[in-house]
Amino acid sequence: MSLIVQKYGGTSVGNPERIRNVANRVAEWHKQGHQIVTVVSAMSGVTDGLIKLAKEVSSEPSEREMDVLLATGEQTTIALLAMALQAAGIPAVSLTGAQAGIVTDGVHTKAKISNISPGKVKKFLSEGNVVIVAGFQGQTQEGQITTLGRGGSDLTAIAIASAVKADLCQIFTDVDGVYTADPRIVPDARKIEEISYDEMLEMASSGSKVMQARSVEFAKKFNVIFEVRSSFNTNPGTLVKEENKSMEQVVVRGVSIEKNQAKVTISGVPDKPGIAAKLFNAIAEANINVDMIVQNVSNTAAGGGKGQTDITFTINKDDMAKVKKITSSMTELASAHGVDIQDGIAKLSVVGIGMRSHSGVAANLFTALSEKGINIQMISTSEIKIAVVIDESQAADAAKAAHAKFELHVA
Amino acid sequence: MSLIVQKYGGTSVGNPERIRNVANRVAEWHKQGHQIVTVVSAMSGVTDGLIKLAKEVSSEPSEREMDVLLATGEQTTIALLAMALQAAGIPAVSLTGAQAGIVTDGVHTKAKISNISPGKVKKFLSEGNVVIVAGFQGQTQEGQITTLGRGGSDLTAIAIASAVKADLCQIFTDVDGVYTADPRIVPDARKIEEISYDEMLEMASSGSKVMQARSVEFAKKFNVIFEVRSSFNTNPGTLVKEENKSMEQVVVRGVSIEKNQAKVTISGVPDKPGIAAKLFNAIAEANINVDMIVQNVSNTAAGGGKGQTDITFTINKDDMAKVKKITSSMTELASAHGVDIQDGIAKLSVVGIGMRSHSGVAANLFTALSEKGINIQMISTSEIKIAVVIDESQAADAAKAAHAKFELHVA
Repeated sequence: MSLIVQKYGGTSVGNPERIRNVANRVAEWHKQGHQIVTVVSAMSGVTDGLIKLAKEVSSEPSEREMDVLLATGEQTTIALLAMALQAAGIPAVSLTGAQAGIVTDGVHTKAKISNISPGKVKKFLSEGNVVIVAGFQGQTQEGQITTLGRGGSDLTAIAIASAVKADLCQIFTDVDGVYTADPRIVPDARKIEEISYDEMLEMASSGSKVMQARSVEFAKKFNVIFEVRSSFNTNPGTLVKEENKSMEQVVVRGVSIEKNQAKVTISGVPDKPGIAAKLFNAIAEANINVDMIVQNVSNTAAGGGKGQTDITFTINKDDMAKVKKITSSMTELASAHGVDIQDGIAKLSVVGIGMRSHSGVAANLFTALSEKGINIQMISTSEIKIAVVIDESQAADAAKAAHAKFELHVA
Repeated sequence: MSLIVQKYGGTSVGNPERIRNVANRVAEWHKQGHQIVTVVSAMSGVTDGLIKLAKEVSSEPSEREMDVLLATGEQTTIALLAMALQAAGIPAVSLTGAQAGIVTDGVHTKAKISNISPGKVKKFLSEGNVVIVAGFQGQTQEGQITTLGRGGSDLTAIAIASAVKADLCQIFTDVDGVYTADPRIVPDARKIEEISYDEMLEMASSGSKVMQARSVEFAKKFNVIFEVRSSFNTNPGTLVKEENKSMEQVVVRGVSIEKNQAKVTISGVPDKPGIAAKLFNAIAEANINVDMIVQNVSNTAAGGGKGQTDITFTINKDDMAKVKKITSSMTELASAHGVDIQDGIAKLSVVGIGMRSHSGVAANLFTALSEKGINIQMISTSEIKIAVVIDESQAADAAKAAHAKFELHVA
């Protein structure tokens, strides 16, 4: 008998029929003698519907009230799933994030979990219930409703798994697991059986949309082993865990593509201390994620002999307008030659902890791309990842080329 | 400056445009310098939609989970109204029933308020906010979500008005106030300016669907003066308060009609102690409201010389199946001659505290009905009410006749 935390996303609980299906799946696990905590998201479409309602009453709804509003989405699902389980003869109890003891900081719409008091979860489990917990939400110490932001339900599942010392945490989703590449782009992509937290992190932050990086980070920090698997079949998925010897023998674990990126180039920035800090602070305060940052000595020789540099960084395409506003309002950038914000780019990453002890990965990647005539606009590397920015129109070709070069189709 | 609790029902907040309208109305009161607590219901249709979802996952959804599910309805409205008020420049904070300190017993789907801790409401008020509270819901001492049953939002408003010692509680609804009769049935019905709690109670329990009796009872118990008025115009409504001398001068305050009734007749019941008690206990346990009860000595002379009686009582038509199940499973009734359950009846009541000191009201009512050829099937009286059961098809004619007889069209 194991204690298992399962998480089902919005698509898996997208309508009453699917909720009944999830109930039947959970019931199977329960009948096998396992103790089950089920974390669920809002039914797909519900959150968008609520956001639409909010926009109809206010052009700029406050984040506190947005949290009160959005939290109803998961609360609806937990009640329905509990009912469906009971109808299947399984004792079940639903708990909101607050009731489940998920305490967060007060940063509305993207709160961080500060503490979990799983007393109620444990009590209801010990009474033989399946315990159904609303993902994505919590409350502050003062009793304000908060939400955890994107990927929040995964985070809830992993945090609860940690708090109740679960044997396993299963993230059920609409994909079969983590693949060596997106199978829709690279047809011979393979499902990965085991992946280390660090690899998963790099895959996540590189656009393999299976999970948000913060959930993986949380799992790594608290050493929660979790499995990513499909809610539509019973295939085993991908196990995410601490790295071990056998994992290190694989040089490249996977290739990922991130589209919808934009590149911001600020050329001829006066080379004075503090300007970059001020720029990126302003960007961080606006909650804009910056990914790759490259700084070079400027090619231009203007500027009265003073040193100048070019700074280039990538952002999500959706944040282009915000970044434009920030850069044009910074007087320190007034003397820069220009701010160029350009979309139509993609990021390609190859990831693998085996890279650490193998050289030549970068060279192989660059060769693969050049063989296909794909120009590299930016390069960034970490210990276990090489990422390049390329033209968005060449993203699929680049992924295929890299996947083939590193022979990822072979187990 | 007054402290006012306002309640807006589901129709008043039925869509984003109406929510903005309510926000503008609340904003007006706030700008006049009043402190405002606004209690809101779920947007009309939302609760029914949730119930439909529940039925799609379970034929018999548990009441605990039903409460978790339904509570999302009001939570959605409070967030939207807070946003709309903020958009109108008014500081506003939403609170769920639990957050507002509404503590109830654990009887899910029809919980009773046991206690209110209005600390948060007061705190947010003192900071200059309009405080928006989710009607219809609370939580138990143990933190389980509960709902208060039909009319629960009115009850929330009156209970909060009592707890914060409000100067006035305004129940905004889709009618202009309490009328001497339903204006759709009796065209010359008049709006009543002031009505006593007891009269309002009798009107409420007699089907004037303005408010549920329990809310009026609560207001009476804690002496909360409240006003029933329209959320679609600015006309003053009807003030409900303790009776005073001038009220007593009116013999009949109003006439009300209750349709969708059924009459249960059990004939030839063995006249032994305890049978009626057992029957009505079983009915009460099934949460079926019984209204009029009449018991006569039986006409039939059968039964071996033992005394027999007929018992007749009225119920809501919706409860007919439940009552049938109860009466047919009671072995004590096995020897009764028959159980006859019949719908197609209506109840007509005339109400007025002035009746206490005036005789002849019953005679006048019976005369009015007989003049129209309307047969009376049952009669029941209280100190301030006379109620009769008649054929449902004659309900409108009966109401008009009684309204005219007591000259209620004249102020």
